[in-house]
Order: sequence, then structure tokens, then C-alpha cells
Amino acid sequence: MRSTTGWLAHGSTELRRTSIPRRDLRRDDLAVRVDHCGVCHTDLHALRSHHGDDPLVPGHEFTGVVTETGPDVTGFQVGDPVAVGNIVDSCGTCVACAAGQENFCREFPTLTYGGTDRHDGTPTLGAFSREYVVRDRFAYHLSEGLDPAAAAPLMCAGITVWEPLRALGVGPGSRVAVSGLGGLGHLAVKFAVALGAEVSVVSRSADRAADAARLGAHDLVDSTDPDAMAAARDRFDVLIDTIPVAHDVGPYLGLVAVDGTLSHLGYLGSMTVDAMDLLVGRKKLSSAGSGGRPATAAMLDFCAAHGVTADVEVLPSARVADALERLGRNDVRYRFVLDLSDLD
Amino acid sequence: MRSTTGWLAHGSTELRRTSIPRRDLRRDDLAVRVDHCGVCHTDLHALRSHHGDDPLVPGHEFTGVVTETGPDVTGFQVGDPVAVGNIVDSCGTCVACAAGQENFCREFPTLTYGGTDRHDGTPTLGAFSREYVVRDRFAYHLSEGLDPAAAAPLMCAGITVWEPLRALGVGPGSRVAVSGLGGLGHLAVKFAVALGAEVSVVSRSADRAADAARLGAHDLVDSTDPDAMAAARDRFDVLIDTIPVAHDVGPYLGLVAVDGTLSHLGYLGSMTVDAMDLLVGRKKLSSAGSGGRPATAAMLDFCAAHGVTADVEVLPSARVADALERLGRNDVRYRFVLDLSDLD
Repeated sequence: MRSTTGWLAHGSTELRRTSIPRRDLRRDDLAVRVDHCGVCHTDLHALRSHHGDDPLVPGHEFTGVVTETGPDVTGFQVGDPVAVGNIVDSCGTCVACAAGQENFCREFPTLTYGGTDRHDGTPTLGAFSREYVVRDRFAYHLSEGLDPAAAAPLMCAGITVWEPLRALGVGPGSRVAVSGLGGLGHLAVKFAVALGAEVSVVSRSADRAADAARLGAHDLVDSTDPDAMAAARDRFDVLIDTIPVAHDVGPYLGLVAVDGTLSHLGYLGSMTVDAMDLLVGRKKLSSAGSGGRPATAAMLDFCAAHGVTADVEVLPSARVADALERLGRNDVRYRFVLDLSDLD
Repeated sequence: MRSTTGWLAHGSTELRRTSIPRRDLRRDDLAVRVDHCGVCHTDLHALRSHHGDDPLVPGHEFTGVVTETGPDVTGFQVGDPVAVGNIVDSCGTCVACAAGQENFCREFPTLTYGGTDRHDGTPTLGAFSREYVVRDRFAYHLSEGLDPAAAAPLMCAGITVWEPLRALGVGPGSRVAVSGLGGLGHLAVKFAVALGAEVSVVSRSADRAADAARLGAHDLVDSTDPDAMAAARDRFDVLIDTIPVAHDVGPYLGLVAVDGTLSHLGYLGSMTVDAMDLLVGRKKLSSAGSGGRPATAAMLDFCAAHGVTADVEVLPSARVADALERLGRNDVRYRFVLDLSDLD
């Protein structure tokens, strides 16, 4: 057993710097020095709902450098820049894994933290830490051309919006709306613009119009203005709904065109939908989250080719509490990233 | 003003034979002798919720013969067999109408009964009557090769399942499930089989397996058998859900394959769906109802070419109360059709 330094939850409000265990490398493992890790809403939820039964170290979208490789690893070398997301293992044999959708693994994918290792049954501990040990299949080469801090959020927020945009065929000529302009939303705008779509932001904050334009959006629809919402009725082939709290999807379905789709990503509880809101226009409601290995690799290639990364505010990891507190009140444009070098 | 004989609601339980008004023909109207009209769940709901404010004559899927034409009518002649569905007018100019989706008309389509005429403001009275006057655009030629009684249910039940099957691209190689084997469901099976799909029925009544096979289904999945439901997990590209009462869509979403769609047709209230049931497999929830003019004409052509009609039990219209009562307890295979000739 090896160890590293990380931020371990004590109760449901506090993270404390402490030594945490890492497994010795298996034959197909990499050890990664974690340089940057994004701060996701999931981290906030995990901490708030933590009651001390299992050890919790958050963090599941990170970039760093390979420091050691197991003897069977052929795709990576010491010194390679890499990126890792929220899945670190899967069964590898079910129909979903066979189709490259490890995120839908029938045995449930092993999560980067809060999961259970498939081999030794230990709880997985996340990347708010200086080192992570990961199976090589779930590490991805990171282009030298991408800023590693700004690339970290691609690995959860990025892939979560990339998969539905691609699955729904977004490209030149597509009319795409993005509701909610946060970590997921701002990447959805950047991706859809880079894919060639005409993109609108739907927001209750009309003062974000300049920001939306800077991200490449065509316009902003003020969701608090009934006239603006009526004027945008049936306008979008795809609406990526990243609003991170429970909300009525009815008004947003109204913006979707005939045979279009609302992909609901931001809030993962149960939702109530009126069948008539789907029927009139034969609209579809979908959801998505995370992504499979082929899509993740394709997204990183696309980001390298188009220079897409997240807009981030980088903080030393010792300020993780500030980051979580500000994220909780939506005070971030658009993703906090922790710099883990202060753990040395 | 002309008149005919029809079945008018008195209160919320009884239909009485009486004289009802029909408008004099406008320049683009047809008068149709109604020979056969299907009995839809909507008729039952309309009667049960009727409180006597507006006159109610149910009936919105019918076939008959043209008896008179307005001076501008060029597409129909006296003596032509015709079919009419649940929409008898629309604005004709909105984006939906321009796209041939009159069922999504922005001014709301004029319903065959329970609607309001766009020109004179009178309430529309349905086809549980001997004559109907309809704008020519919303009448369709009926092939001589189709039994007019068995064709009547195509005009509501049929088009309601036809549109999503076509919109979702069902054809050879598609794996389609149909839940609920009633008026809509049995037509969904017939259509999907004729379109070349491999079709399964999902039913809580395993004793319907022989019926499902007779309709062309490959097999029946018993929804009350957890092992059968688990074995069918992620199996279907499209699931047409025709269950006519509120129900949990979660178990049915479990049967849908990655990127597949559950089209929810049978129950039009609000429904609750767990985002995770959509997320895992990036599944879509949709709905549909009725259809546009081009799709209706295409469906009738397809039915003529493939010999598809509904399985019906024909009753003289004087037995309408029996039909509604038996429909209420699901005692019909698979659609009641009233023979209106007893109104002469």
C-alpha cells in the first residue's frame, strides 16, 4: 500500500488535509500526479450528504502527469500528461461496455470516488489529492496544446454535455439552446458553437447576455420574460437543460421544435412532465451523464483541434472550502479548479 | 341549417338518440353519410366528464360515403368512400400547418367534436350520427379494398400509433415493443410488423400471447414476471406505450435500448419520471397523438397496400351504451365500431 495527501471529509461540512491510502500498482495501472482537479456540483452533494460511514475524498475530473506504470501498460509512459474523469473501471464485457458505453455498464461503472474497487472491494477515494492510481483504460492522453487546469473540467462537465450533443446529431444547421450557464452550460455553448450550430442561451439572468455572446452564443432568451419565451416557441432542435435544481421542464419543452429533444442534465432527481407538453410537437425528453471511452477520447481530440477548454478560476487546494461555498451560491464563472501542488 | 340524427349526451352517463344540427355546406365542404364510427377511450372520457354545458355528440374516427359537395370541392365526388379522423380544420398558415402537422396547429386544430368551428363559432358535434359535414381538406379517400368498418379506427387509433412509428424510423431491423394490447396497441403491432420490425408485446396478461402471435408479434413479455422483464432489459429501439391509465414508466424505460425511445401514447395526464431512468442508456421519452394530413394519407395508402385494418366488433349504434360500458372494463378485442345505419 502506498499513500498520498488529500482532502478527506469530516462530517458533512469540512474537508481536512490528511494522508490517504493508494493501492500498489496492478499490472495495468498508472500512478498519476494530480495537478488540477475541477470542483463539480456532485462534490458538493457528496459532502453535504456525507455521514461518516465511508471515507470521502471528492474530485473526479482531473489532469496530471504519469509518474509510474504497471508492467502491462503499453499506451502511457512516465511523464505523459493525462486526464481522468468520473469512471475508473467497468466490467468490460457487458453489451454497454462492448459498445463503448462504459458509463452504462450493466454492473455499474466504478466511480472515481464513492465507488467500490472491483478487485479488492475498497472504497475509491477521489482526486482532491496529490496522487491517483487508475487502470490505464480509464486514463486519456491530454494534448500538450490544452491548458491542463482548464482541461480538467472537460472530464466530467465536458463529457456530460458532449455525449448528448453528439448523440442528437448537433452540427452545422442545428438550432441549439442551452439553459443554465454554469459549469456544464458554458461548455455546452462552446461545444455546440464549435460543432457549427446556432446557439442560444436561455437564462433568467439577462445580464449574462454579454457573457453568452463571448462564449459564441447567437443570443440570450430571458426565461423570465413571457414575450421572449413565446417568441422562441418551437425554435430549437435540441435544448440542453443544465439547470442544477428541480424545475418545471414544461416552459423549456415549449422552446423545442417538432421532433426535437430536451436533454435534461443538470438535475438528476425525479421530474414531472405533462404528456401534452411532449405530444404537441412530438417532442422528446432525454437525459445524459458522463460518457464512454470512445466518446471521451473523441471529445479530447475535438477540444485539441478547436482549442476548447473550460473557463476556470484556479485556487490552491487549501481553499477548497471557499470553492465549495461559492459554488453552492453559484458564484463562479464557470468552474473552480483546484491546484493540488500545495499538497507536496 | 340542415339536421341529422345522432347520439347526444344527457349528463355524464347517457346518450340519447335525437335530431342534431349540421351546417349548410360551405364552398369547400363535403356532406358524408356516416356508416361506421369507432369507439375511442376519448369518447368515454368525454362522456364521463360531461356536465351539460355544451352539447356533446362523441365520435371522431369514421368512414362513410360522400353525399354532397360544395361548389369549390374538386377532389371528391358524390359516392366516394371517405374516412375522417379527429381533426376537421386548422389555421392552415402556421409553421405546423405549413409543415403538414395540422395536429400541432398553433391555433389548435378544430376537433371533430368538442371543438369550436373556426368560422361560425358553433360547437362541433361528432360522428355518432348519420351525417357529418366536413371541410374537404380533412376528408381522405378510402380504398375500396379496405373494409369500411374495420378502417374507421385507423383514423384515430391508427394515426396515433403510425406517426411515432414513422417519426422514430421504424423499419426492417427495428426492435419494437408495444405495451398495452388494446385499440392503439393492436394497431401498433400490425403496423410495426408490416413495416418489417421485430415486434414484442409487453403485457400483464400472459394469456394474450396467442393473440399477440396472431397479430404478427414475435413474442410476449409478461410485465408481471421480474425475470422476463430483466431478460428483456435494453432490448427495444422503440417502445410504444399504449397503457391507457396513469402508470410508472420506469420499468418500461428499462426495456429500451441505448439511445432508444419510449413513446407514451395511452395516457395523457402528467407523469413522473426518474432522470436516472433516462440517463442510463441516454433514453428518450416522447408522446404523440393524432396526425397531420400527409401522414394520414400515407397511412391509408400503406394500409391499402398491406391490407391492414383494425380488429373490430361491430354493433348497431343503438347499442352504444353497451360498447362504452364494455370499453370501460377493457372487454373488447380490439375496437368497437358503431354501425350508424340504424339511425335512418
